[in-house]
Amino acid sequence: MSSQPAPQPAAAPADPPRPSATPSGAQSLASRYRAVRERSVALAAPVSAEDAMLQSMEETSPTKWHLAHTTWFFERFVLAESTGYEPVNADWDYLFNSYYQSVGPMHARQRRGMLSRPSLSEVLAYRRQVDERMARAFDVDRFDAPLCQRIELGLHHEQQHQELLLTDIKHALWCNPLKPAYRDDLPVATAAAGALDWLGQEESIVEIGAAAWPLDSEHFAFDNESPRHRVLMPAHSLATRPVTNAEYRDFIEAGGYRDAALWLSDGWALVNQDSWQRPLYWDEMLESEFTLAGMRPIDPNAPVSHLSYYEADAFARWAGARLPTEVEWENTAAAVAVAGNFVDQGYLHPVAAQRDADSVNASGPRQMFGDVWEWTSSAYAAYPGFREMPGSLGEYNGKFMSGQQILRGGSCASSRDHLRASYRNFFHAPDRWQFSGLRLARDA
Amino acid sequence: MSSQPAPQPAAAPADPPRPSATPSGAQSLASRYRAVRERSVALAAPVSAEDAMLQSMEETSPTKWHLAHTTWFFERFVLAESTGYEPVNADWDYLFNSYYQSVGPMHARQRRGMLSRPSLSEVLAYRRQVDERMARAFDVDRFDAPLCQRIELGLHHEQQHQELLLTDIKHALWCNPLKPAYRDDLPVATAAAGALDWLGQEESIVEIGAAAWPLDSEHFAFDNESPRHRVLMPAHSLATRPVTNAEYRDFIEAGGYRDAALWLSDGWALVNQDSWQRPLYWDEMLESEFTLAGMRPIDPNAPVSHLSYYEADAFARWAGARLPTEVEWENTAAAVAVAGNFVDQGYLHPVAAQRDADSVNASGPRQMFGDVWEWTSSAYAAYPGFREMPGSLGEYNGKFMSGQQILRGGSCASSRDHLRASYRNFFHAPDRWQFSGLRLARDA
Amino acid sequence: MSSQPAPQPAAAPADPPRPSATPSGAQSLASRYRAVRERSVALAAPVSAEDAMLQSMEETSPTKWHLAHTTWFFERFVLAESTGYEPVNADWDYLFNSYYQSVGPMHARQRRGMLSRPSLSEVLAYRRQVDERMARAFDVDRFDAPLCQRIELGLHHEQQHQELLLTDIKHALWCNPLKPAYRDDLPVATAAAGALDWLGQEESIVEIGAAAWPLDSEHFAFDNESPRHRVLMPAHSLATRPVTNAEYRDFIEAGGYRDAALWLSDGWALVNQDSWQRPLYWDEMLESEFTLAGMRPIDPNAPVSHLSYYEADAFARWAGARLPTEVEWENTAAAVAVAGNFVDQGYLHPVAAQRDADSVNASGPRQMFGDVWEWTSSAYAAYPGFREMPGSLGEYNGKFMSGQQILRGGSCASSRDHLRASYRNFFHAPDRWQFSGLRLARDA
Amino acid sequence: MSSQPAPQPAAAPADPPRPSATPSGAQSLASRYRAVRERSVALAAPVSAEDAMLQSMEETSPTKWHLAHTTWFFERFVLAESTGYEPVNADWDYLFNSYYQSVGPMHARQRRGMLSRPSLSEVLAYRRQVDERMARAFDVDRFDAPLCQRIELGLHHEQQHQELLLTDIKHALWCNPLKPAYRDDLPVATAAAGALDWLGQEESIVEIGAAAWPLDSEHFAFDNESPRHRVLMPAHSLATRPVTNAEYRDFIEAGGYRDAALWLSDGWALVNQDSWQRPLYWDEMLESEFTLAGMRPIDPNAPVSHLSYYEADAFARWAGARLPTEVEWENTAAAVAVAGNFVDQGYLHPVAAQRDADSVNASGPRQMFGDVWEWTSSAYAAYPGFREMPGSLGEYNGKFMSGQQILRGGSCASSRDHLRASYRNFFHAPDRWQFSGLRLARDA
Repeated sequence: MSSQPAPQPAAAPADPPRPSATPSGAQSLASRYRAVRERSVALAAPVSAEDAMLQSMEETSPTKWHLAHTTWFFERFVLAESTGYEPVNADWDYLFNSYYQSVGPMHARQRRGMLSRPSLSEVLAYRRQVDERMARAFDVDRFDAPLCQRIELGLHHEQQHQELLLTDIKHALWCNPLKPAYRDDLPVATAAAGALDWLGQEESIVEIGAAAWPLDSEHFAFDNESPRHRVLMPAHSLATRPVTNAEYRDFIEAGGYRDAALWLSDGWALVNQDSWQRPLYWDEMLESEFTLAGMRPIDPNAPVSHLSYYEADAFARWAGARLPTEVEWENTAAAVAVAGNFVDQGYLHPVAAQRDADSVNASGPRQMFGDVWEWTSSAYAAYPGFREMPGSLGEYNGKFMSGQQILRGGSCASSRDHLRASYRNFFHAPDRWQFSGLRLARDA
Repeated sequence: MSSQPAPQPAAAPADPPRPSATPSGAQSLASRYRAVRERSVALAAPVSAEDAMLQSMEETSPTKWHLAHTTWFFERFVLAESTGYEPVNADWDYLFNSYYQSVGPMHARQRRGMLSRPSLSEVLAYRRQVDERMARAFDVDRFDAPLCQRIELGLHHEQQHQELLLTDIKHALWCNPLKPAYRDDLPVATAAAGALDWLGQEESIVEIGAAAWPLDSEHFAFDNESPRHRVLMPAHSLATRPVTNAEYRDFIEAGGYRDAALWLSDGWALVNQDSWQRPLYWDEMLESEFTLAGMRPIDPNAPVSHLSYYEADAFARWAGARLPTEVEWENTAAAVAVAGNFVDQGYLHPVAAQRDADSVNASGPRQMFGDVWEWTSSAYAAYPGFREMPGSLGEYNGKFMSGQQILRGGSCASSRDHLRASYRNFFHAPDRWQFSGLRLARDA
Repeated sequence: MSSQPAPQPAAAPADPPRPSATPSGAQSLASRYRAVRERSVALAAPVSAEDAMLQSMEETSPTKWHLAHTTWFFERFVLAESTGYEPVNADWDYLFNSYYQSVGPMHARQRRGMLSRPSLSEVLAYRRQVDERMARAFDVDRFDAPLCQRIELGLHHEQQHQELLLTDIKHALWCNPLKPAYRDDLPVATAAAGALDWLGQEESIVEIGAAAWPLDSEHFAFDNESPRHRVLMPAHSLATRPVTNAEYRDFIEAGGYRDAALWLSDGWALVNQDSWQRPLYWDEMLESEFTLAGMRPIDPNAPVSHLSYYEADAFARWAGARLPTEVEWENTAAAVAVAGNFVDQGYLHPVAAQRDADSVNASGPRQMFGDVWEWTSSAYAAYPGFREMPGSLGEYNGKFMSGQQILRGGSCASSRDHLRASYRNFFHAPDRWQFSGLRLARDA
Repeated sequence: MSSQPAPQPAAAPADPPRPSATPSGAQSLASRYRAVRERSVALAAPVSAEDAMLQSMEETSPTKWHLAHTTWFFERFVLAESTGYEPVNADWDYLFNSYYQSVGPMHARQRRGMLSRPSLSEVLAYRRQVDERMARAFDVDRFDAPLCQRIELGLHHEQQHQELLLTDIKHALWCNPLKPAYRDDLPVATAAAGALDWLGQEESIVEIGAAAWPLDSEHFAFDNESPRHRVLMPAHSLATRPVTNAEYRDFIEAGGYRDAALWLSDGWALVNQDSWQRPLYWDEMLESEFTLAGMRPIDPNAPVSHLSYYEADAFARWAGARLPTEVEWENTAAAVAVAGNFVDQGYLHPVAAQRDADSVNASGPRQMFGDVWEWTSSAYAAYPGFREMPGSLGEYNGKFMSGQQILRGGSCASSRDHLRASYRNFFHAPDRWQFSGLRLARDA
């Protein structure tokens, strides 16, 4: 156990006010709007105009595009609902629509890095203009309940893009042979990882998911988290903490990447095709890794990160365990406070569980939230009774319900007030550029 | 309702003896072995040596390869267990291994069509040699219980390849601009499709899956069907019959292939990339389709077939319904006899539900088995408590548990005695060359 | 120098009668027609119906397709000129057109291997039917001069396909891990390679090319060989013989495939991308090579073969020399008889220059014709004053005049009476499946 | 004929001093060094730091990379020749090496757009540092003759990159749906195109090429232009001016892009695969085109530009003519002054031949230099007796001598003092992003 004092992140982004469970109407929304919008700009601050152009993979987007698209979301889905609305720049509709087919054609996703114009400063000005228009509308209470709900959705949408902004720029900077840092001044913390224990659960009928928002609940949740529904959860055990870098290194050194028997067939094909031999950002010596602060030593006690689903699954098989289902994960998480290492803490990297956390959860689950998204064995699919949001925003989640896996818990790049136990993240099995790790489970 | 007499398929392949629930030991197995092995040869009979070379997609295999690989399975996993076994041809191990990494390296899957040697007649001779060696061993009761189990598995394995042999050669012949038939003399049958009713089910805890074979049950099932386990099934309704060609044509004519809102995102991308406008084998006029008997008129009353998961899902959304989960499907199927239009019937094409079937199931589900595999909304994943078979045969199913969807019920190209309610077939969402259709479900 | 007697090929294909310089009209053409057509069938005789399906690369064609396409050529461009002509099978026009856009649409080149129907025996029957129709027309002197010219062209066309038939089936069989032979009984011959000397030439104006056929000459030549024209040939030296396997092995062992400085940029990219380390068919030990008779020891004295242009060019640079231009090659070849190791000799493989050849050309160039096509540094382009043949046959050569390199001299798979000093063969620089080698040149 | 006064480009980049035929040693070289280096910076001035990141195709490079690579060239090949030289930044060697294998490994070409660091301002500082070191060395006469030659080469190298900087940024900005301009203030000029006449030439032995520099001549030329050598040029006619936009529009409207008979086979494949229907930057209406000043009306009198070799060749065939060989082109150009519409004129776009030019060349060739590079029918190959420069700089030209076509004459984006009659430019036949047009030729 480290005796090091709790870290004081030098320059953590402004922490937005915690949403109360029952937001007190439009004024509280206005304040939350400002806070979330400001955080995006704060997160982009270390990114130069040139960095903000980078699109290193088809799956990622430039920082500038994130800043513009989230703004377009409010303009297109909130402000433009007023008759006679004049957009800030009508041409940008095409540029900054992501995937809303019902709204019109859009710029090809993989060419977002080709947009040197508008410039970063024009995009920041665009943000200010839209924010001013929003502020004026807030001031005169122009937003009715449906629009307030769209704004709420837009803020959660923007928080998702804040996390992508960080993971996308991390990947882009890593592509540069100079391995430049996003920020040089990120704090470091360590602690003993603590023993891995197992939390046993009997078979039982459990309820998971969130009541449908805004119809059945005033607490925000995405449509894909609802309805709340009953599931028969089988008996099982869940590990008290995520797998650490030290444990994952053991897997590598035991030949994990060379033993076909440990891998799903598609994963084994990728291991060979792309010559995977370690997590995405680790160096060949297994000693240092690329972080948002550049190359840094690997902390053996911190949760392992930047794994594909295939790697998480292979590790679990090697360890004589398996990945949890999302039901198992959520059932345990629902009893735990949403606390941990988030973007709010300012590490922007997974860290070993800290002392205070340990004492609180001495015998319970640790690091359920924050640090790393945890791959589950559940494919992304509709819950029984799922209904998409009506209209264009119905394209938000439902149409991606094929070919992806669920991850749970949030990461060091997620906002604390964006998360909850029922939150379902989803990525493709080969994806490795998120802060994605794993927690083991096993049959009872 | 058609008054036409039940069809008498002119040349249906020999119907293998039905397995008794409790096979009476090695002699019954020997007889079943002969029957299954003979059916493969019978199914290949209309295929010329030249046809038997065709590999039209990476996912498909030449007829000759199916004949050889199924034989290699018995040689490698049964006969070669005897010490000092001399293989018929040691070089063929490399050629006819499909995907057993633990057995050694193998010929590249997408190059199977490059194997003009060994010839079809050499492969048929190989089959005879292995069958003789098997027969001799059966005669002297050489197979102990574990080997008998491997033989049982090998026969089910071969039945899977029999279905693939048919769907693969169908696709390969369709690629020929001359659109030649596999057989000219296949019978035709029709009948009224009957009204589509809904079978309602309350929420309840149900048991699905099969007990683990051979450990917990003497009834064969693949490892991926076990363990039998309890699930909370939500309230829902299931359609009494599959979607017909006429219904699917309505979807096409209503612009189903042009409305992004109906499609999963990956499906919409494929619709555009590959210019999908109708099921795989339909002609542009929506009037005739390619069958194993060549181009034939589309029967409006027959179940629609050769759909991808995306098309099945889009149709269901258009129809205001959804696809069933595999739990919903199996729970209903478990109460129904395994009867219907199988390869045994000799149509080798989906047909409208026949009168006798109708009368039996007047108010119950029809065509649960046979005709078309039915896409479910369930991703292919391990059941709680799943254990792979030990050894090389553990590669049979488990390693494919990512990125595929479950289909249920068997088709006009499946053997009746190969199917059961718990049977889980799995293909990738874009795949269309199987006899794959759908049955609607909806929330209660 | 080997004292071994000149080999007596056991089963060389029938040698067609040599064309007299001035063919004595339609009857002589009829006899030549029969001989060329029979040779195609003879060359296909060792190819099974299954082998005849193989298409191992987009650039190659199945044996069956060669047999059908060459027949279609006579049917489409000769027989179908008669009004009211009924084709043997009208559907085959689409299948067996190669690239004549002006004649209509065609089956996709890379899918020729998908044509199991018509069968090989149907194709052979098609050949017989067309040959009978041709014979009947010859008998009644139905062909006027323009049609006789088309027949002459068709025979040279067929001889080109005979060579491709051999190189394509060689590549296809090599793709089979069993490395089966096209024929087991091909003879072997060797001899000392003889010293490599240089034939010096002063700068001079030379004439190359052929007079335009049939307009300006009764001697057949393809349109791309004409017009005969004057060129200023610079002073240079040409090697007396091709580069041998022993010499090429020295290049490999000296690290030729690892030294970027020896390679054209596009070639170096291929060396790395495709991991080229030796000629196409050589084994890793540099000791044996795949031949039409299966794997055989490499004869150090025989000309090296199956090189890409990039390898030929790199070898020449390593040897302190360069490739000849086609002008330099033709100027020397024009003084030499068309003699050497052709398909007629029955080796179907390059062999060391034989004694009698040596004595004849003691101090002159050896192996200018036969054995291996020799890469030249000349890109395939029109001669000054070039005119394409009128009509559809104008598509024969001219439209390929970009992106290819000229090879000269013919190979062990060419017919002797198909070659001449002015003959221009052309392939893409990366191509290696022809019998392609090189002869060195250097500036004077 | 237009009566419009000669245009006065508002903001043409600084015109570097013309090199005298015999440069008066290092001081004159120093002055030329400054001028060329300043022009690069001037050309980059309208490019924002964000624009300077754009790499729209693998074949193109970001502006920033051009600025850095040209600087690296002087540092690596000139300054670093001094023992003990400390590079400005040792890490940049890897980033800014283009293709010099002998110098070490390099950043992947297609990932140059991923380099947000170093920033544009750091790259400009790098330029200044290197320029200062060069200036100091010039001041103390540190450069011996071989280094002066390398500097001379480096300046011509930089001028090549200046042209690419313009064509690359043009393509990159065009990829932006907003179609932003590089500069808004570019001047416009027009004039009558003038009749197209033919300049006849008899067959004769001509000399082309340049004496080898620096060995045989003090006049700079690239190694690929030498040696000067004799060629027999056939009788032919050459058009007095390039093909105009109006003439090319006639070709389009006559169905040129729909007639396979006009096209080389590889070109026809591209026309269909990439749906080519007009020059790269023309709009669908054939009325306006993208220029470095944004979308502008097409001037019917200006030379057509941004054609691939295939389009140039197809147009020529349609016009009953052909492309000239490089010999034919150079022989005519050698008699003409190097004058015309260059980057120095400041249009940065092809313009119709101007009055003064017309009067000078009333009956002779017009626009041989400047406006558009003219595709020739000559493949890029070594002249007889060609020798590459020794050492790393031998990689400059020779290794690209396969698979490309020669273009002659320079363009509106070339520096006048960079051109000469013997200058050989080369691109791949499909390339369209250069200012590439054509001049017709025909057999005499």
